[in-house]
Amino acid sequence: MGLIGGSMAKAIKQKTDHTVFGWDGSENVRFSAKLAEAVHDILEEGNPSNCDLVLIALYPGATVDYVKKFASQFKKGAMVVDCAGIKRSVCQPLQEVAAQNGFIFCGAHPMAGIERSGFTYSTPDLFEGATMILTPYTGTDIAPMNELSFFFKSLGFAKMQVATDAEHDQMIAYTSQLAHVVSSAYIKSELSPKFKGFSAGSFHDMTRVAKLNETMWTELFLDNSDFLADEIDGLIKRLQVYSKAIREKDGDKLKAILKEGKEKRLAVDDIKEFE
Amino acid sequence: MGLIGGSMAKAIKQKTDHTVFGWDGSENVRFSAKLAEAVHDILEEGNPSNCDLVLIALYPGATVDYVKKFASQFKKGAMVVDCAGIKRSVCQPLQEVAAQNGFIFCGAHPMAGIERSGFTYSTPDLFEGATMILTPYTGTDIAPMNELSFFFKSLGFAKMQVATDAEHDQMIAYTSQLAHVVSSAYIKSELSPKFKGFSAGSFHDMTRVAKLNETMWTELFLDNSDFLADEIDGLIKRLQVYSKAIREKDGDKLKAILKEGKEKRLAVDDIKEFE
Repeated sequence: MGLIGGSMAKAIKQKTDHTVFGWDGSENVRFSAKLAEAVHDILEEGNPSNCDLVLIALYPGATVDYVKKFASQFKKGAMVVDCAGIKRSVCQPLQEVAAQNGFIFCGAHPMAGIERSGFTYSTPDLFEGATMILTPYTGTDIAPMNELSFFFKSLGFAKMQVATDAEHDQMIAYTSQLAHVVSSAYIKSELSPKFKGFSAGSFHDMTRVAKLNETMWTELFLDNSDFLADEIDGLIKRLQVYSKAIREKDGDKLKAILKEGKEKRLAVDDIKEFE
Repeated sequence: MGLIGGSMAKAIKQKTDHTVFGWDGSENVRFSAKLAEAVHDILEEGNPSNCDLVLIALYPGATVDYVKKFASQFKKGAMVVDCAGIKRSVCQPLQEVAAQNGFIFCGAHPMAGIERSGFTYSTPDLFEGATMILTPYTGTDIAPMNELSFFFKSLGFAKMQVATDAEHDQMIAYTSQLAHVVSSAYIKSELSPKFKGFSAGSFHDMTRVAKLNETMWTELFLDNSDFLADEIDGLIKRLQVYSKAIREKDGDKLKAILKEGKEKRLAVDDIKEFE
């Protein structure tokens, strides 16, 4: 019950009629969750055997370990959903486990968050208007998936996006992970301690997500190293084109590549859903 | 009277007792400004000879041309201020011109803007809470500078930051120009047309300022090519460190550089003024 799990618990409890059982490795968090009435009760040792729907909001490796540990304990036909920010490394090892043990497993990635982590910052409104990406296995029954979709919409999610785990990981490498890498690298200029009085909105936007949880993001990045490294290297190559044009004072080239960037950005605006 | 000049005119007219004369190369804009009561009247052919304070909001090269053209027409002792986003290429050629013609010249960079340009988007509140960077020549009399500072605060500016033109250009290369280059390069991934359903706030933040006026930014970048190319190349080098750690799945290294980025970003938070 960190930021995501805690927010899920609070949203379900406040916005639906479901009974919510929570678990966290920290006794302190379990106590806080009970006290804050984020849950109706605490699961015994994290055992999910009485649950129809199990939402797991752990790091990717810990998610796989958890599901394997309780593989035979899940209710037959239960829906088990993980919320990790990366999907191949979680979904691929669990397909067989789910099939063998008679529960349904579906990957999910709530596209919501803040630059904070932990139960303290969890809020029932975290998912208001957000997109939920779902990565079910090919062949998953449509009926429970529909039910899951309605359930997430009742928590505030505005839209369900279905993708394969690989599609998810490749797109997230670009739309989210690369942004975190750039932000982290951006702030490390020798000039950054002197920014005071010289910054505008763009500097803030570029560096906002550098304030990340390095333990979680290291795992997310390593589980997606192929797609992410390709995106970083692609960006480096594109930046080199700007650097060359600027150093050589090639105004025509520079204007052309800036215009191209503007047009690509405007095309993104045209795909309405944005913002 | 584009975004900056138009907003200056509107702010001065609404928030002070000064009489505002405006000029724009386009007859259409001059007509609109008069009609919108953004100015009391239009300057004849842009001639500033009746003005105590002249605010120039043109591209850098055009600013230098304008001041040279009317060098002998400025009132003796008038304060002439340019608002271009780059200062060396404007301030350095005009120091001698100002001294020879008996007016005071001061560089200024209002740290405010939106991803739009032109009089249509100008607003009297554009500078509310913003920082104004001033780059006076060494030896400029303090009395008119104080007056200028009070004047800008009356338009809504929250803070004056004084710097040399070179200090300004180096810091702006990092805090603003580099952000525009990154944003323009970021949007050009082959994956960008497929972002729908996979984007969160960080993607929006990274690509927002790609929607720039390429003619203006080309001139600003070329006038600052030394500082800006150094900043781009510095960022490329730092990104290569992330790429290498991710490709080699070096978790210790990756975690260390992410932690370093978080700490540098938190240090920026500690310098209060931010946000």
